[in-house]
Amino acid sequence: MIQELTILNLLRDDLQRVEQKMRSMGEKAYGPLAEAFLHLIGSGGKRLRPALALAAYDFFAEPASAEAIAVAAAVETLHTATLVHDDLIDGAAVRRGRTTLNAVWGKGAVVLAGDYLFARAAGFAAETESVPVIQLFADTLRIICEGELRQLFSSRQWRQSKETYYPRIFAKTASLFASATRSGAILGGASVEQEQALYDYGYHVGMAFQIVDDILDYSGDEATLGKPVGGDLRQGIVTLPFYHFLQAQPEPEAIIARLDAGEDAIAEVVALVRGSDALELAFGEARAFAAQAKADLVHLPAGPFQAPLVELADFTVSRHV
Amino acid sequence: MIQELTILNLLRDDLQRVEQKMRSMGEKAYGPLAEAFLHLIGSGGKRLRPALALAAYDFFAEPASAEAIAVAAAVETLHTATLVHDDLIDGAAVRRGRTTLNAVWGKGAVVLAGDYLFARAAGFAAETESVPVIQLFADTLRIICEGELRQLFSSRQWRQSKETYYPRIFAKTASLFASATRSGAILGGASVEQEQALYDYGYHVGMAFQIVDDILDYSGDEATLGKPVGGDLRQGIVTLPFYHFLQAQPEPEAIIARLDAGEDAIAEVVALVRGSDALELAFGEARAFAAQAKADLVHLPAGPFQAPLVELADFTVSRHV
Repeated sequence: MIQELTILNLLRDDLQRVEQKMRSMGEKAYGPLAEAFLHLIGSGGKRLRPALALAAYDFFAEPASAEAIAVAAAVETLHTATLVHDDLIDGAAVRRGRTTLNAVWGKGAVVLAGDYLFARAAGFAAETESVPVIQLFADTLRIICEGELRQLFSSRQWRQSKETYYPRIFAKTASLFASATRSGAILGGASVEQEQALYDYGYHVGMAFQIVDDILDYSGDEATLGKPVGGDLRQGIVTLPFYHFLQAQPEPEAIIARLDAGEDAIAEVVALVRGSDALELAFGEARAFAAQAKADLVHLPAGPFQAPLVELADFTVSRHV
Repeated sequence: MIQELTILNLLRDDLQRVEQKMRSMGEKAYGPLAEAFLHLIGSGGKRLRPALALAAYDFFAEPASAEAIAVAAAVETLHTATLVHDDLIDGAAVRRGRTTLNAVWGKGAVVLAGDYLFARAAGFAAETESVPVIQLFADTLRIICEGELRQLFSSRQWRQSKETYYPRIFAKTASLFASATRSGAILGGASVEQEQALYDYGYHVGMAFQIVDDILDYSGDEATLGKPVGGDLRQGIVTLPFYHFLQAQPEPEAIIARLDAGEDAIAEVVALVRGSDALELAFGEARAFAAQAKADLVHLPAGPFQAPLVELADFTVSRHV
């Protein structure tokens, strides 16, 4: 279980400070928002992104400075902001087993609540007073938005190559993981090589993490997933499992025709993907990214964070059923 | 006419550089976005915000540095981003006489296009490499979002006091005007007193500007306004003209009842406001803000920007019919 990850235990006090910083933002928000933000902030996120930022920092300097806490809060708040807008775009009423803002408020309020969280995330990033960290943050925000737009505009383009999938999950997930570790490294005073190694570690863990997420969208069950199975395909999003599945089909056109034949037909295709060896092929790629992440750690100082970050890389590819 | 404003002529070359910077952002954007962004960027905005940033800078240093151009692009891009989300929230199909993104794209794409512009604005702000400017920028973004949320949550609360109206238009408009002038002053190397004077000037011009905008929503005609008359009241937004109108009513409850009686009844109330002396009362307040703006200039060095900024303050309160 994620709660038992050594890295989260090791960073418990610092993560508590991040939590407190985010909660205090929620409490200070305008009346009707405060409750909603506290709900959002407390929605059971894994806090992997702030943990990555803090772990990267702690390689070089301990305990976490106010700036390190600020950047950890910035990445998690940015992540929360993107979830709020994603849920609006998908029309999702439930995430992580809890109702979304979307299910409670009107469209306008949800757009603005997401914007407000972007603003607060930018404010946290600015608190670091580090121009490179702030520039990285702005750049990551741009990459995430661009990736979401690409995903939207390539919706229902069933025959996508792997060369469009990888940049898409970099934008969606790995970019923020990598900018979390890189920011921590910069604030901690890492050398250029160490900063690069931590960026690479974040990138590789992020890629592995998202591939497994995309596998779980097929293989998971709704209870542990906290959302319906097969959601990606229903939304017209092509991920690695579907790519491998379609590659192996003697008649891919017949599959594609079924995707245009309504909900029931899509559910059948989801079941076919689930039963195929496409999931295992995708999983092999996730494992390769996790292995690269572990190799990146060689360039970093020995100490209490080596083993927990190896464990975290292994964890990302253990979340399957 | 605005095109004849001396300040815009004086800054023509620098504004051209800002325009070029924004256009180049549009051109480099992901395929389907590029055209939409160029449309948005070229939608006939008055470029008052970048002009304010550049004028404030030029009091102390000329010609505009790359950082001054960047902050001017940041404020205008942030402004454009908020318009994109506003139009989505209002469901507006037309702004400044041109179709909105909203009228062409789905909800999801519009949300993300606005987010993308926020990201680019943050990137431009980060290019200044000035931590105070970046922090001011993040803070202004937060104030704008908070203001929009307040406006949304106070919708159709017809009996609002003037004490809720002023902070609302500060958040909506004056905060960005003031942060434009303040950012220019910081980058130009103003003293603390000069920075304050330029902040105040931007604040007062912004307040005057928004009050007149709110008057024009009643008194304007659709052709010059580029949007329907009475839009604020139809959206349930109480502005200064309606406040003064309601104050003068012997039976305000009768008016409020009509606002709940459908489109035709609202149009009648709009006509009543338009024919009352509420507009002139509101206009008097706008003139007072413009006068304060001119007084703020006393604290600034003599030179070619004094007279044009007086003219600009006068201009903000000359836009009535």
